[in-house]
Amino acid sequence: MTDSTANRQSARRPGGRNARVRAQILGATTELVARDGIAGFRYEEVAELAGVHRTSVYRNWPDREELVAEALLQYAEDLASIIDTGDLGRDLVDYLVAMASGLGTPFGQALEQAVQPTHENPAVRQTVARILEQRGVALRRRVNLAVERGELPPVDSAFLGELVFGPVHLIVNRGMRTFARPDAERIVDVVLAGIRATRPRA
Amino acid sequence: MTDSTANRQSARRPGGRNARVRAQILGATTELVARDGIAGFRYEEVAELAGVHRTSVYRNWPDREELVAEALLQYAEDLASIIDTGDLGRDLVDYLVAMASGLGTPFGQALEQAVQPTHENPAVRQTVARILEQRGVALRRRVNLAVERGELPPVDSAFLGELVFGPVHLIVNRGMRTFARPDAERIVDVVLAGIRATRPRA
Repeated sequence: MTDSTANRQSARRPGGRNARVRAQILGATTELVARDGIAGFRYEEVAELAGVHRTSVYRNWPDREELVAEALLQYAEDLASIIDTGDLGRDLVDYLVAMASGLGTPFGQALEQAVQPTHENPAVRQTVARILEQRGVALRRRVNLAVERGELPPVDSAFLGELVFGPVHLIVNRGMRTFARPDAERIVDVVLAGIRATRPRA
Repeated sequence: MTDSTANRQSARRPGGRNARVRAQILGATTELVARDGIAGFRYEEVAELAGVHRTSVYRNWPDREELVAEALLQYAEDLASIIDTGDLGRDLVDYLVAMASGLGTPFGQALEQAVQPTHENPAVRQTVARILEQRGVALRRRVNLAVERGELPPVDSAFLGELVFGPVHLIVNRGMRTFARPDAERIVDVVLAGIRATRPRA
C-alpha cells in the first residue's frame, strides 16, 4: 500500500483534470467518513457526492480501504509538522491548539475511534499507526532542535509527546468542558518546567 | 436514579439471599458489558448467565439502563479513592498503575467508549459523569492534604488530574505499547516537578 500511495501522491502534483477529480473524490470521502465514521463509510456514495463518474473512483482507488486510508493521511498532513519559531513552548502551544481543534471535528473523532485497539480494520489501523509515526518524527525533530539550542535538557521526545498530547486528548474526548489556548499554555508550562527540573530516567 | 440507587446500595448490605442474587446479577451484567459493550448489552441474557430467575432481574432492576449504570458504578468503586501514605508521588503512581490496568480490561474499554461525547445513551453518560466526579473529589481530597503538608504549592487538582491521567489514557487506549510502573513514575515525577517549578496561572 505504501508504494502505491506514494506514487499517487507524486502523480497528483502535476495538476490538471485528473488531479481535480482526485481532490473531489478525497474531499467527498473525508465528508462521508466524518458523517458515518470509518466503519459506516459507504464506498458507493463517493461518486455521487463528489460529482464524478463511478469509474473515476474505481479506477483511482480500486480498494475501498486504500481510499479511506489516503483521505485520513491527507487530513493528517496539517499536523505532520511543528513550526519552529525558536520558542519550543510557544510552538507546542500552537500545535496543541490545532490538535484539539482537529480532534473536536467529526473526522477527528472518527480517527480517534480508528486508533482504538478494538478497531477491526487492520488497513485503517495501519494507516493511523503511520500517521502517529509521522507525528512522532515531526515532534522528535522539533524537540531535538530545542535540545541542541540548550532550551531543554536531552529528553525522550515520545515521552514528552505523551505528556502534552495526553491531557488534550482526555479533555477533548470527554467533552465535559471545552479546550482553549490557556489550557494548552498551562500544560506546556508545567511539562517543560518539569522536564527541566528532573533528570529523565530513560 | 440517584436516590433509588442509593436505597438499593444500603439495602444490599444486610446480606442474605436477595443480596446474593443481586451480586450474581451485577456480576453477570459486568461480564456481558465487557463482552458486548454498553450499546450491545442484552438485558435478556442476564438471568441465564447469572443463574437466576428472570423475574429476579426485572424486580430488582426494572430498567435496563439502571442495571448497566449500577454495574458501572460498582466496577468504578475501586478507583474512587486514593491511598494516603504521606507521599503524594508514590500514591499517584499506585493510582495510575491501577487505572491503567482497569482501562486495559474489556470493561474499562466499554467505559471509555461510554464517555465519548457521541455516546447516545444519556443515562449511561450521566453515570460515567458521576464516576468521573467521584474520582475528581477523591483526587482533590488527596492533593489538598499534600498542599496542607507543604509537599506541593496550591494547585488546581482537576488540572493536575488531567496532566497525570491524560498520558495514561493515551498510552492504554492507543495500545501501541504496554503501560508499566516506570511509565507512571516518569509521568508523576515530571508533573509534580513542573507544578513545583511554576506558579499556576489559575
